[in-house]
Amino acid sequence: MYDRMQELSAKNIKKIHDATLALLKNKGVSFKDEEALDIFKANGHKVEGTIVFFKESHIQKALKTAPGRFTVHARNPEKSMMVGEDDFVFLPGYGAPFIMDVNGKQRRATMEDYDNFCKLIQTSAYIDMNGWMMVEPVDMPHETVHLDLNLSNMLLCDKPFMGSPISRQGALDGIEMAGILWGGKEKIMDKTVSVSLIKTQSPLTFSGEMAGAFIELARHNQACAVASLVMANGFANFSLAGILTLQNAEILAGITLAQLVRPGVPVIYGATSSVMDMKTGTLSIGAPELSRNIHLVAQMARFYNLPSRSGGGLTDALCVDAQAGVESTLALSTAARSGINFILHSCGILGSYMAMSFEKFLIDEEVCGMVRNMIRPMVLNDDSIDLGRIKAMCGNDAYLTHPKAFQLRRTEFFAPSLMNRKNPDAWGSQGRQRIDQIAEDKVAQRLASYEKPDIDPKIEKQLTEYVENRKHT
Amino acid sequence: MYDRMQELSAKNIKKIHDATLALLKNKGVSFKDEEALDIFKANGHKVEGTIVFFKESHIQKALKTAPGRFTVHARNPEKSMMVGEDDFVFLPGYGAPFIMDVNGKQRRATMEDYDNFCKLIQTSAYIDMNGWMMVEPVDMPHETVHLDLNLSNMLLCDKPFMGSPISRQGALDGIEMAGILWGGKEKIMDKTVSVSLIKTQSPLTFSGEMAGAFIELARHNQACAVASLVMANGFANFSLAGILTLQNAEILAGITLAQLVRPGVPVIYGATSSVMDMKTGTLSIGAPELSRNIHLVAQMARFYNLPSRSGGGLTDALCVDAQAGVESTLALSTAARSGINFILHSCGILGSYMAMSFEKFLIDEEVCGMVRNMIRPMVLNDDSIDLGRIKAMCGNDAYLTHPKAFQLRRTEFFAPSLMNRKNPDAWGSQGRQRIDQIAEDKVAQRLASYEKPDIDPKIEKQLTEYVENRKHT
Repeated sequence: MYDRMQELSAKNIKKIHDATLALLKNKGVSFKDEEALDIFKANGHKVEGTIVFFKESHIQKALKTAPGRFTVHARNPEKSMMVGEDDFVFLPGYGAPFIMDVNGKQRRATMEDYDNFCKLIQTSAYIDMNGWMMVEPVDMPHETVHLDLNLSNMLLCDKPFMGSPISRQGALDGIEMAGILWGGKEKIMDKTVSVSLIKTQSPLTFSGEMAGAFIELARHNQACAVASLVMANGFANFSLAGILTLQNAEILAGITLAQLVRPGVPVIYGATSSVMDMKTGTLSIGAPELSRNIHLVAQMARFYNLPSRSGGGLTDALCVDAQAGVESTLALSTAARSGINFILHSCGILGSYMAMSFEKFLIDEEVCGMVRNMIRPMVLNDDSIDLGRIKAMCGNDAYLTHPKAFQLRRTEFFAPSLMNRKNPDAWGSQGRQRIDQIAEDKVAQRLASYEKPDIDPKIEKQLTEYVENRKHT
Repeated sequence: MYDRMQELSAKNIKKIHDATLALLKNKGVSFKDEEALDIFKANGHKVEGTIVFFKESHIQKALKTAPGRFTVHARNPEKSMMVGEDDFVFLPGYGAPFIMDVNGKQRRATMEDYDNFCKLIQTSAYIDMNGWMMVEPVDMPHETVHLDLNLSNMLLCDKPFMGSPISRQGALDGIEMAGILWGGKEKIMDKTVSVSLIKTQSPLTFSGEMAGAFIELARHNQACAVASLVMANGFANFSLAGILTLQNAEILAGITLAQLVRPGVPVIYGATSSVMDMKTGTLSIGAPELSRNIHLVAQMARFYNLPSRSGGGLTDALCVDAQAGVESTLALSTAARSGINFILHSCGILGSYMAMSFEKFLIDEEVCGMVRNMIRPMVLNDDSIDLGRIKAMCGNDAYLTHPKAFQLRRTEFFAPSLMNRKNPDAWGSQGRQRIDQIAEDKVAQRLASYEKPDIDPKIEKQLTEYVENRKHT
């Protein structure tokens, strides 16, 4: 297939792979968790202080057991999703402290905002999975907020969800609650029902919290996306090739740990490195380098036969303007087209991860739908070409009411729910609204239409009690 | 190369090709120009009334002489461009009657607007060619406006330009003026200095004006893009496969005419078919089907070894909002990535071709720069990976002033001129401006910085006199 984006030759992939192995062998990776260090030592790794060194054989062994594709199960089995190879999922934004409103005013996010995002995800035709920490609620105690987020994820939405990898205990709470949701922890011990985001601390470090959470999640067969974010121009003053190597080292080190804990546990190759803007000193996630990296990450993951993760609807814009549309669409469409399997941050992010916007959430969601349509293969057979109808059509004015037209409208073409296709008069008579203003109304409509998915009242009670008990211990 | 967009197998391309040949043989194509009919008759085509029928051998012969790649020469030789294979050009919007201002008010375009677009193109780092009829000036007489547009194109900008294919005489005026610009018509007889857009009248018709212009342009070795726009859901109530076949028939018929007039004249395979929106009855150029078609058109053109043309920054949005950013970026990046060579409408279009926006022009232009950057291959060698620097970087806080950092900032990473990467405080203190509001200021700055390119005063006088004389005959 012709593609103007760069194809990494086998020789070039080997260059990156070899440089990565050299880095893992000679420089090593720091894991700030005692159990992680013990696991590595017990499996023949050289360990100095918190620095773990890797031989090629360690990496190869891990890659042999990591699966290329897995199912993440939803409590509503119709909503379970495959992740890997041709199958991919869109997920909401992650980790934003603020809400940006339609007038460009920012405020701290609350638990009510979080719940509203859960409701939008539940009612979404295009978001495949619930996320985690779409926003950080300021009105909940920091120590226990992960319990409330997990509870909302599990009660307000019946799609697959992300886990709570804030610490070893945070991860375990998520696992316990998922066990309750599935009617018994034994039911999820061989079943992946969540995907958690394990962020590295670049360069070449896993914090104690992340390493601990990672071990518990892997032990319970819960999937993790190891995510490396290297800031070019910032601490990483080397080229894209160097960044690709550094993030590769961090990811492979993490994946090796997971496979030592539980061979075969699903792990995702994840990276969303980008550049620091030299004028402002901030990370730019609207930069085209982000999309270049996404395309290369997808290829590296395929080389290792691993599912891949990147960002999606990412932007530096601080309001839902044309820039937000440009940058988010470039990254999201690149991720989907280039073969990324787990597209985090598909919806809602503004200002380089600083805020979520409800209006942008709906617009990005429609982009997810457009991209799914764009990559849909055309049906090519005698009926779809239908020379007879082409030949008959000249001078035939009744095309709008032709029976075939009705069928095509339902099956062949994308029906937008948000994008404006009005003519100028109709648009003018409705107040010349920008799409973000139109989206504001739609957010209210969507939330009003939300219905809580059915759940066994006993399970709901058990979950709520678990959260209450944990809050008081 | 892995790509989630559809790859047409050789078998599927043959299906479309065979259906096209059947259509050309049995249904034929109408050319409403006497000379065109005479040329076809003289070359052994069956002709009934205005309908011309094509045998496979006619098509094959034309495809043998049409070049896969050509140079379009600029009067400033440094700005000449290659079109075909890996080489591609970005061009401005085409044919809009209105200007949409930053407040969403539309007005008829004027000659001053046209000239201002020529100035933005001349000062653009990313627009490779001047267009034609970027807007239709309401303040100039309809009969002679093409002369004024050609004059502005040639005097205000020294990049390659598009020709004036409004009629046989309109095309000839453009050719005469280009002859003057190059210091004598004989100097351009074997040199392509313009590309003109020959639009079909779907289904299966070339108007008299278009066919006449096409013949004159081909005779003078000027390149033409044959452009078929089939409106799915509208008169064409068949699937995407049928649309691909119908547009293929129109384009191949046109290319055959050009190669009969002058074997070897450059022709471009062009199509921007899309769907009619069923709620509003208007053509949607923001639809994902447009991008699906672009990707398929690029593959059909490569099958025939022809340069390809599509649209770029296309949207249905009526103001420069997030929708405008989403839709334009999806189509533009698809065109560039999928291998289109002549990307018309890269900048400025709003409202399904209804208006041009100066602000959107600058935003789209920046997207062109981002896309050029995104597809740039990463340099992969020992220096670009630079393990030594990666190993040394931990704990090194002086990265911002490291000599390598300065070099990378200049060579490796994209420097935006418009996109906002400010933090919320800096953005707030500057009035929380949307990108279209920021662009409004930049338009004025760019126009103020414009300098008319040097031209021999004798040639300028001859060109001006040609236009004056033609206006009075």
